Amino acid sequence: MKGKFIVLEGLEGAGKTTAQQAIVDVLAEYGIKDLVFTREPGGTPLAEKLRHLIKHEVEEPVSDKAELLMLYAARIQLVENVIKPALLAGKWVIGDRHDLSSQAYQGGGRQLDQQLLANLKQAILADFQPDLTLYLDIDPAIGLARARTRGKLDRIEQQQLDFFQRTRSRYLQLVQQDPKALIINAEQPLEKVRADIQQQIRHWIINEQLIPLA
Amino acid sequence: MKGKFIVLEGLEGAGKTTAQQAIVDVLAEYGIKDLVFTREPGGTPLAEKLRHLIKHEVEEPVSDKAELLMLYAARIQLVENVIKPALLAGKWVIGDRHDLSSQAYQGGGRQLDQQLLANLKQAILADFQPDLTLYLDIDPAIGLARARTRGKLDRIEQQQLDFFQRTRSRYLQLVQQDPKALIINAEQPLEKVRADIQQQIRHWIINEQLIPLA
Repeated sequence: MKGKFIVLEGLEGAGKTTAQQAIVDVLAEYGIKDLVFTREPGGTPLAEKLRHLIKHEVEEPVSDKAELLMLYAARIQLVENVIKPALLAGKWVIGDRHDLSSQAYQGGGRQLDQQLLANLKQAILADFQPDLTLYLDIDPAIGLARARTRGKLDRIEQQQLDFFQRTRSRYLQLVQQDPKALIINAEQPLEKVRADIQQQIRHWIINEQLIPLA
Repeated sequence: MKGKFIVLEGLEGAGKTTAQQAIVDVLAEYGIKDLVFTREPGGTPLAEKLRHLIKHEVEEPVSDKAELLMLYAARIQLVENVIKPALLAGKWVIGDRHDLSSQAYQGGGRQLDQQLLANLKQAILADFQPDLTLYLDIDPAIGLARARTRGKLDRIEQQQLDFFQRTRSRYLQLVQQDPKALIINAEQPLEKVRADIQQQIRHWIINEQLIPLA
């Protein structure tokens, strides 16, 4: 049986690392242990080099369009060389970000043309998409305060608060239109966030009949 | 007065370097000496890093789509940070390759979907285009033999002959449809190629009335 692709989305400091562990633990309850972890941008040798260029280019201003194109170059490398082969081999893939990040950050935050984003997604990914997306929703002021405690901010994390507010608005707008995406309130205490994620995953697994009942 | 953007196109070994010198010399006849030279992919700090990834990634197979996206990321950096500012400042820009290379190599050589290529060009470059393109036409077998004498071939130069034959066909097809592009027979002796280029540039300058007559 083909594996499933579960994606975690959200602003910096939303708690994606904690959420990932919550998913691993709840999948283990169902005996799903053959997992592959990805992060975007990145996750292949070339995509990691692109990640570095995207996050740390300092010698010149980076065109918003160049940033978007590098993100999609990294994404298609990861999809073709890692995610699709893993799913075909029956593994489950847990992704730290995927296409929704580009729609939210580049479309919302950077205000790039929505038609350009939609065309690029269609041209590059066609109908490939996550089986489930968990969007960890948090006020950017709270998320950024958390992210800052982790150390130096990269080129994108250094944006102003209104950039992240636009990003959050676009996230919420897109997630509400996506039948395969769920919103998690990530401003709650960590234990409550963890419990919510696990409950949502259990419901999804049962509703989708992903585990053959004995 | 705004500068002009002249682009040299052609297969490996077609003689773009010699052609560039011929253009510099003929422009000097008209007193045009404030020139900027670009090459693609490359020409800015970020675009040169992308050039390296495009030409020398060896750790994993590179998706044709990722290659195309990196080329466009490098191109828009160069256009926004170098070419457009130079033209606005009244400088003339001599480009070693531009968008036509992607149409020919990725569209013809790699056989990527033509609609994808057209959409990407429109979305990223809009109506920005060279004022004049000189396509140096050569049989790929002859060009590659010349290129090999220059040393080790990169990831793209290592393609098989049929790749370059498809690339040449697409070049010819596109140049014939483009009123701002000219074909130069690059299989002729170098002095004849040089003379043809200079004659074409002189005709173009006079026809376009680019130099105010005394």
